[in-house]
Amino acid sequence: MIIPKNKFAYSGILVGLLLIFFTGAEAWATSPGAATAAETYLWLALLLLFAKISGLIEKIGQTAVLGELLIGVLLGNLYLLGIDLVEPAKTNQIIAFLAELGVVILLFQIGLESSPTAMRKVGVPAFLVACIGVAVPFATGTYLVGPWLLPGLSDNAYLFLGATLTATSVGITARVFSDLNVLQSREAQIVLGAAVIDDVLGLIILAVVSAIVKTGEVSAGEIVWITFKSVLFLLGAIVIGNRLAPVIGRWLSKVHTGTGMKFSIMIAFCLIFAWLADLIGLAPIVGAFAAGLVLDEVQFRDFAQPELIADIRRITAKSDPDTARDLRQTLEHYEKNSLQVLIEPVGHFLVPLFFVFTGLQVKLDVFFSTATLVTALGITVVAFIGKLVAGLAAGPANKWIVGWGMAPRGEVGLIFAVTGKALGVVSDQIFSVIVAVVILTTLLTPPILTAVIRRAGKHRK
Amino acid sequence: MIIPKNKFAYSGILVGLLLIFFTGAEAWATSPGAATAAETYLWLALLLLFAKISGLIEKIGQTAVLGELLIGVLLGNLYLLGIDLVEPAKTNQIIAFLAELGVVILLFQIGLESSPTAMRKVGVPAFLVACIGVAVPFATGTYLVGPWLLPGLSDNAYLFLGATLTATSVGITARVFSDLNVLQSREAQIVLGAAVIDDVLGLIILAVVSAIVKTGEVSAGEIVWITFKSVLFLLGAIVIGNRLAPVIGRWLSKVHTGTGMKFSIMIAFCLIFAWLADLIGLAPIVGAFAAGLVLDEVQFRDFAQPELIADIRRITAKSDPDTARDLRQTLEHYEKNSLQVLIEPVGHFLVPLFFVFTGLQVKLDVFFSTATLVTALGITVVAFIGKLVAGLAAGPANKWIVGWGMAPRGEVGLIFAVTGKALGVVSDQIFSVIVAVVILTTLLTPPILTAVIRRAGKHRK
Repeated sequence: MIIPKNKFAYSGILVGLLLIFFTGAEAWATSPGAATAAETYLWLALLLLFAKISGLIEKIGQTAVLGELLIGVLLGNLYLLGIDLVEPAKTNQIIAFLAELGVVILLFQIGLESSPTAMRKVGVPAFLVACIGVAVPFATGTYLVGPWLLPGLSDNAYLFLGATLTATSVGITARVFSDLNVLQSREAQIVLGAAVIDDVLGLIILAVVSAIVKTGEVSAGEIVWITFKSVLFLLGAIVIGNRLAPVIGRWLSKVHTGTGMKFSIMIAFCLIFAWLADLIGLAPIVGAFAAGLVLDEVQFRDFAQPELIADIRRITAKSDPDTARDLRQTLEHYEKNSLQVLIEPVGHFLVPLFFVFTGLQVKLDVFFSTATLVTALGITVVAFIGKLVAGLAAGPANKWIVGWGMAPRGEVGLIFAVTGKALGVVSDQIFSVIVAVVILTTLLTPPILTAVIRRAGKHRK
Repeated sequence: MIIPKNKFAYSGILVGLLLIFFTGAEAWATSPGAATAAETYLWLALLLLFAKISGLIEKIGQTAVLGELLIGVLLGNLYLLGIDLVEPAKTNQIIAFLAELGVVILLFQIGLESSPTAMRKVGVPAFLVACIGVAVPFATGTYLVGPWLLPGLSDNAYLFLGATLTATSVGITARVFSDLNVLQSREAQIVLGAAVIDDVLGLIILAVVSAIVKTGEVSAGEIVWITFKSVLFLLGAIVIGNRLAPVIGRWLSKVHTGTGMKFSIMIAFCLIFAWLADLIGLAPIVGAFAAGLVLDEVQFRDFAQPELIADIRRITAKSDPDTARDLRQTLEHYEKNSLQVLIEPVGHFLVPLFFVFTGLQVKLDVFFSTATLVTALGITVVAFIGKLVAGLAAGPANKWIVGWGMAPRGEVGLIFAVTGKALGVVSDQIFSVIVAVVILTTLLTPPILTAVIRRAGKHRK
């Protein structure tokens, strides 16, 4: 049980927390204009605490990410009850940035935990899963379900609906895999690989569809160029990174400047890759993932807690052989994960922000119209089926895990919708439908995927 | 030496870094409007790398903070040479926020390392140092040096000049103490205590002076109220915190949710205190410092690296008595600093940003006018003398260390100047002078303080 013996103290903390929340939110709600830094501190603290409290959903067998999304949805829709205390948090630019940075750090961490060798092994199935997972939803969305459930719209509108359905938001899935300790499984590796390829394919589709809408046509040369630079980035990042990382690693092991320098170079590596990805039009998270993948190859020894390590080494040297062997093994394991250990606190700080913030953006009133709701449900079913079909191409692996893993559209789907809206192709109605599909695929995937993984007995917790 | 064997690779990295810098800065400089998230990633990475490279100044006996300030000044004044690539970083709101958050985290870390018991021991000298350090600069600035060096201005202008000179920016000094490993010394504790009291006194002076300027008078009741709520906050924070922290600590030790929850609660604690301080008009860093001071009393065991700790405990249990004793001692030491260990990576990320960003804001062209320069130098000398006199009240401690430690005005002095400018009392000329005094006290203190501490043989490095 997590309730302290001193229940009075516990309730005191809760009451204090709520008081702070309402005073703070009140103060904010009444102050016009941009939030001050101090107000943002308060929001960060509150969102972090709510995220962690919601994470107790793990006690009832769900993953923490679902709790974070749901508490976000809950807080974000308080305005439907006339409580608009939370509204400033939704539009706070600093929190929005830190949330985005959070998902960048998450994908970097996941890249660190993934091994390029393991990823190469699943290259072919990942590629197949990605291609089918793009082709099937695109075709059914554009030519079948769109015209059927939303009749009378322009061809371009259907094109955008189809394009939106191709997206895969790897953030949600990766968190579920990570929460359940199955990131190293073949299924997780296929999904991660396919999601990255998916992002590249999605980028190409978005560029092509946008060009068609804008000019009525698109040159083959343009398609080739977009494809070329995306592939070049990923290959380049991995090849150059593979050469650079060991050099940096060896160099850093020699520098006697404590962990600060090493940590900064690691973070800078991640951020520069995220920026490079954005520069050529890919999502920053793809760059961060590539950065993590590359750094994983290197043994960055003695990065975290050098003093503790040195102390234990000294003790090892003069202890009996059995103890020495045990200590050496423990240290070995710890040093291998030294980069993850260093980045972890930054992740603890920023990653939950992303999921709570994503939840905050969900507008439940979209579901108030029955017509929209039915249409959204229909398209959501198609959206799930499209990715489940893709899962069948996963080869010798649990096809359900792969299929469900590819399902959440998340923020990637929203980017498509927002682009379509900006181009004037996506009406408010389709936009609501797309948002609903994104919400449903994003919120339903964590519990379903958790159940599927549990049933397959893959989790190690 | 820190140069890798493969010098080709080294130059490759440098060239790559510069290329990225100029491409990125170029892209940014040409894109109008607000920076995208990805551009901010790039700036964060670059500022972090520059901060760390400048930190190599430690190799020539200076503290890292001076290097970070200087590289900031260097980058921030490239526009004087016609290079305006860095301008967007100066006005980037996200970086400004993260820099502020950085100094909040720094003061939280310093609070964690300071012991309330040790601070109480220096309570009387700290109070004396603070009072004299406010009274002397205020009196000399307002009634002596102001009218003498800047004749013909209004009484209110001198009042603001005097008020500005009372400030103490603890961030700079604390970093020097921390860089030199002397935070636990009596001198450092006096300076930290005095700086907090100084902030409260400064707040009262600012409120009073502003009221005088606005209404021509100020009620005694108002002064009492401001004083009362400031003192109440600090005492309240420490008293309530002292009761709350052990409860939270005991509770968290029982929760089996990994380090994420514990870390989040710790960060939230810091941020809420920072917000509370701001709410009543104190600087957020004072709240963060109080939060750190309070948490220090508690033994937050098993916070960092619970798996490693558990492994070593297991080995300890079955090893011979000598080894077991050594291992227990090592763990004990590590666990005591468990909170610091957890917060460290976040500090590595954000703290250097504050100092580089502070440097970026320095406009060297202020010094181009000889009249301004001479006036500024004169007032800087007075500013230093005022705080050195205050150091004499430090009792049995090195009075020079205390005096120089109180000298930097930093961002606190700037807040006074900006408030005075907003009230129409501080002219552009006085503003330039104040900025120059702030720059000089801020930039000169780290090397001088380092030399004074070294000569006193207090540093342990």
